Order: sequence, then structure tokens, then C-alpha cells
Amino acid sequence: MAKIANSNLISYSPDLKIVDCTMRDGGLVNNFRFSDEFVRDLYNTCIKSGIDYMEFGYKASTDIFDENDFGKWKFCKDDDIRAIVGDNNTDLKISVMADVGRTNFQRDIIPKNESPIDLIRVATYITTIPSAIEIIEDAKAKGYEVSCNIMAVSKVNNEELFNGLNEIANSSTDFIYIVDSFGSFYPEQIARFTDKYVELGNKYNKKIGIHAHNNQQLAFANTITAMMHDAKMLDSTISGMGRGAGNCYTESLLGFLRNPKYKLIPVMDFVQKHIVKLKEEGNIWGYDIPYLLTGILNTHPAPAIKFIKDGRTDYSKYYHELLDNLL
Amino acid sequence: MAKIANSNLISYSPDLKIVDCTMRDGGLVNNFRFSDEFVRDLYNTCIKSGIDYMEFGYKASTDIFDENDFGKWKFCKDDDIRAIVGDNNTDLKISVMADVGRTNFQRDIIPKNESPIDLIRVATYITTIPSAIEIIEDAKAKGYEVSCNIMAVSKVNNEELFNGLNEIANSSTDFIYIVDSFGSFYPEQIARFTDKYVELGNKYNKKIGIHAHNNQQLAFANTITAMMHDAKMLDSTISGMGRGAGNCYTESLLGFLRNPKYKLIPVMDFVQKHIVKLKEEGNIWGYDIPYLLTGILNTHPAPAIKFIKDGRTDYSKYYHELLDNLL
Repeated sequence: MAKIANSNLISYSPDLKIVDCTMRDGGLVNNFRFSDEFVRDLYNTCIKSGIDYMEFGYKASTDIFDENDFGKWKFCKDDDIRAIVGDNNTDLKISVMADVGRTNFQRDIIPKNESPIDLIRVATYITTIPSAIEIIEDAKAKGYEVSCNIMAVSKVNNEELFNGLNEIANSSTDFIYIVDSFGSFYPEQIARFTDKYVELGNKYNKKIGIHAHNNQQLAFANTITAMMHDAKMLDSTISGMGRGAGNCYTESLLGFLRNPKYKLIPVMDFVQKHIVKLKEEGNIWGYDIPYLLTGILNTHPAPAIKFIKDGRTDYSKYYHELLDNLL
Repeated sequence: MAKIANSNLISYSPDLKIVDCTMRDGGLVNNFRFSDEFVRDLYNTCIKSGIDYMEFGYKASTDIFDENDFGKWKFCKDDDIRAIVGDNNTDLKISVMADVGRTNFQRDIIPKNESPIDLIRVATYITTIPSAIEIIEDAKAKGYEVSCNIMAVSKVNNEELFNGLNEIANSSTDFIYIVDSFGSFYPEQIARFTDKYVELGNKYNKKIGIHAHNNQQLAFANTITAMMHDAKMLDSTISGMGRGAGNCYTESLLGFLRNPKYKLIPVMDFVQKHIVKLKEEGNIWGYDIPYLLTGILNTHPAPAIKFIKDGRTDYSKYYHELLDNLL
């Protein structure tokens, strides 16, 4: 019945949550060099527009990354977040992402009652799930909501994937994410994946999330398809800002969802003030042919990002280069 | 079973047809002022890439439109087409669009055996179906394949729509198109519409087509959704070139379809040679917030086109203007 209810476009699911990843995935476009004004305005925009979670960036370890090479949101120190949100006495929850192998979680993830952060999202590949579970259990013990985001699942065979999913389902994580890292999935595949994840989630009391990329201009379509199949956590970014082809547009999602708590106008104001400027300053993201081709070929967008950065337009040559690297 | 077969991404439907509308819908971007080299190269690209139909433009009447105000493809005289394609001894079929009330079909649509054109696509609103049927029967009697494209169906109540559809189903048309003129439909709605059209089409032996617009970045998703529900004629344009937010990208569609007769590389070469140049020359189309908002509001894109042409970025003010004009 849930699907039938969801698929009635007039109705809405009050238990859906939107996770704004503009700074986290968008930070991959500008090395996390966002002005404090940008961050403060985004924070207020998320509150005004009824967005449920705002992801500030990564909890990367300063042991591994040089702080001079990145803006501060690569590291998301609690004090830096607090300087923006104070005690965050609002309905908006704060999220950060911790990459397996790139975070000193024992040291840098402090007890929840001392931190403005609400949700720790653990990003892992299928091969690093045991390490992911270490972070999940540590963060859970410290009092946080926890999500496990399995990346690049389009590259994983189903048996290996569902073995890994079962390990995660038996952990303390609250949420499990489908991550279409390469933007290679079509809606019917997302529907089948979501059904599998939701079946497991229902059994182990985990909510399922979707993080889509726009390589084939399917990020929004795949996100609402996952929603129709009972994914409850929907990632989006304002104007789709994110690595390469970017993500599901928050604007599209807010226009689609009928829940009156979500408001589109504050996002429009933010785009007018900040996104237009970011693009004028030469930050490039969003659908383009080179990303379509890495999406179709189910491979990492790095060569597409370089192709565009180099100002190339020899698409056929580039396509053959991609094929050569796959064979 | 057809749906199950279609939804197996490895398989393909050999009876699918791709209709390239780059010059027809794209002509609305540049007033049909395409160079002969562009048209010749597009013709050869369509042949090489296995596209089934190429639509050259409109059969507009010179009694109504001044030939000085438009490129020649607004009028698609048979001699102009023949100058490009000769006798078109290829597998590629040639199509033109005839708008109800804007074409002198008795005079300008000549007998098929004297014309390089294969398919006449009659574009109509639900209110002008009797006039559309006049053109359909005239073109059919002259020996052409005929399609009836009912525009702006998102604005029509279902009873009126299915009355109109029944009139058309009883005509001599070969194809009936779902046209999402305002880019306002979501995939689940396209699925329901396609099922209704296909049910009628099966009864009256008409094939169903889909023409999508990209206001919500759903043109490709809606096109493949219609395909999964047994639409057989799929409109697309290279790089989505078309009015406002544009159309379903031919690149995406060729990347999705598994039929080995379709080739992506020739389209890449065409983009490199012609589309990049068109954009450098200031021709603007494709997804942008103003189109998203007219799509969400299910209204004509004209105000969005003007907003962008005027270089405005005050999205909230514009959104309120749209709402004011709807109330």
C-alpha cells in the first residue's frame, strides 16, 4: 500500500527526509573553499525551506590531508560548525561524512553531547565494510545517528553486495544508502536495488537512502523512483552542485514533494545570491557529454572532469580513450 | 510480457523508431536559420547513427509567415529538402511537421510520389482535432505515413482527452504522440498516459510516440519510461536542442538502447563540429531554473525564455510573477 500511497502525486510521505549535500558533494568542486557567508546563508536556507539534514562536509583527518590544500569543510571541526550554527536550536539536523581510511574517528568524532553534529555518514566501498562497521559502532556508542553509504555499487556483483549489506544490516547503523557514484543506473535498476535494500531494511529496522549522480540526467528521476519504492532519505544539492555531473537538484525535489513543510522560495533566493556567483567565478559542475559517457560506461568521472578542465571538445577521441582504458 | 522484455536492459526492441527533431524543435531556438552544411552533416549523422526518421522542420504556410523572418526550414519546401537529400536512397525516413491552422496542406503537401518526405506529423491541440483530421486524411490520401501529435495534454482533462483520442484513433493516422509540451509530467504520469494511449493504439492499430521536454530534467527518464510501457516512436534532439529547456538528448537515448544498429560516435562528431559552435554563437537552450518553474507550474515556457533572454537572475520575483499570472 505504501507504494500506492507514495505514487499518488497529491499525497506525500511525512516520514521522508531531505539531506542537503551542497557543501559536501559541492565541496569536491571548489575544494571546500566556501565563504562563511555562503555557509551561514545555506544553513538559514535549509531551515527556511524545511530541509531535514544539512551536510557540512567531510571529517577528513589532518594527519592525512594538508589543511592548506583545502577549505575547512574538508575537516568539519566541531568548533567551525559551532561558529556557524551555535547550539543549533532548530529542527535542522547537522551531518558530516566520514570516509573509511581517511578519518581519525577515535580522535575527531567527539561524544555527541559535546558536538553540534547529529548524524555521522560513513562512506565505504564494499571491500572496506569491516572498517566501516568500526566507525559505525564507535559513532553510535558516542550517541550519534549513523548512516552507512556504500559507494560504487554499480561495480559490485550482487552476491558480494548483498553479503556486505547483511553485515551492515547487523551493525548499529540507522540508515543504509544506495550510492550511484558513477551515475550509471537507470530508474528501473534503482527500483530493483531499492526493493532489495528496503526488504533488508524492514527486516533489520534500517531506513534506506538514495544518493544519485546526474551523469545521464537521471539523478532526479532516480531519486523519486527510489522514493516511490520506499527509500526515506533523499540526498540533493542546490542546483545539483557536486562532483562532475553533480547530484539531484534540491529545487526539483522541493517542487515535486507535496509536503507543505518544504518551501522552494528560500532556495531560489540562495541560488540568486550564491550559486550564480559560484558559476561566474568559474566553478564547473553539471550534466555534460563527458559525464554521460563515463555514466554509460559505468566508470569513474575523473577523466571527464579533466576533459572539461582542459577545454577539450573532441568527444569521439575522448570516448575511444575511455574505451581503451576499460579494455 | 512486452514490458518485461523491454525492461530487460540487455535486450532491445527492434521495432523502436527514433525520430530526430533537432532541426524542427531546435529551429525554434534559432528561427530555423541552419546552414546547409549543418543540415547536410545532420542528415549524414542520422544515417550513420542508425536514426530512423529525421524531421527537417515545419510545413508552415508562406501565406501566414514572412519568409524573411525565418530560415527555410520553417517552410520545408520539397525542393529545399531534395537539395540536401536528393532522392534519399537510404534507410533514413524524412519527416516534417504541419501545425493545424498554420499550413496550406492542400497546396504545400504534394503527392508522396513527387516528394522526398515520408512522414507528415500533424501537431494539434485537443480543441482543433477536427481540423487535424482533415490534414491527416489529406496526407494519407496523398500516400504519406502520418502522425498526430496532440500537444499540451497536461492541460486537458482526461474525459476531453480520451474523447479526442478516440476521434483520432478512428482516423487514418499511423502514429499518435504523447506530447509533454510544458515538461510538467513525472515518469509515473507518463507511464499511466502511455498505458492509456497504447491500449487505444492496440485496438485501432496505431503506434504510440513520446515527445518530452526537459524542464524538470525528466525528458530522457520520461522517454524511456514511455518506451518501457510500449511507446514505439521516440523523439529526441542532439544535445537536447529545442525550445526552452529542450528535449530528450539523442546521445542519452543511443547510449541506453541496446540495438546494435544505433551508433553513438557519429553524434559525438556532430556535436563537436556543430553544437559547440551553435552554443558559442549564443544560441541558448537546455535545463535552467526558469524552465523548472514553468514545468512545475504546468505552464508555457515563454516567460522563462524571456527571463533568460533578459539576463535576469531574480528567481523568486520571477516565480511570484508566474504565480500571479496563473491566479
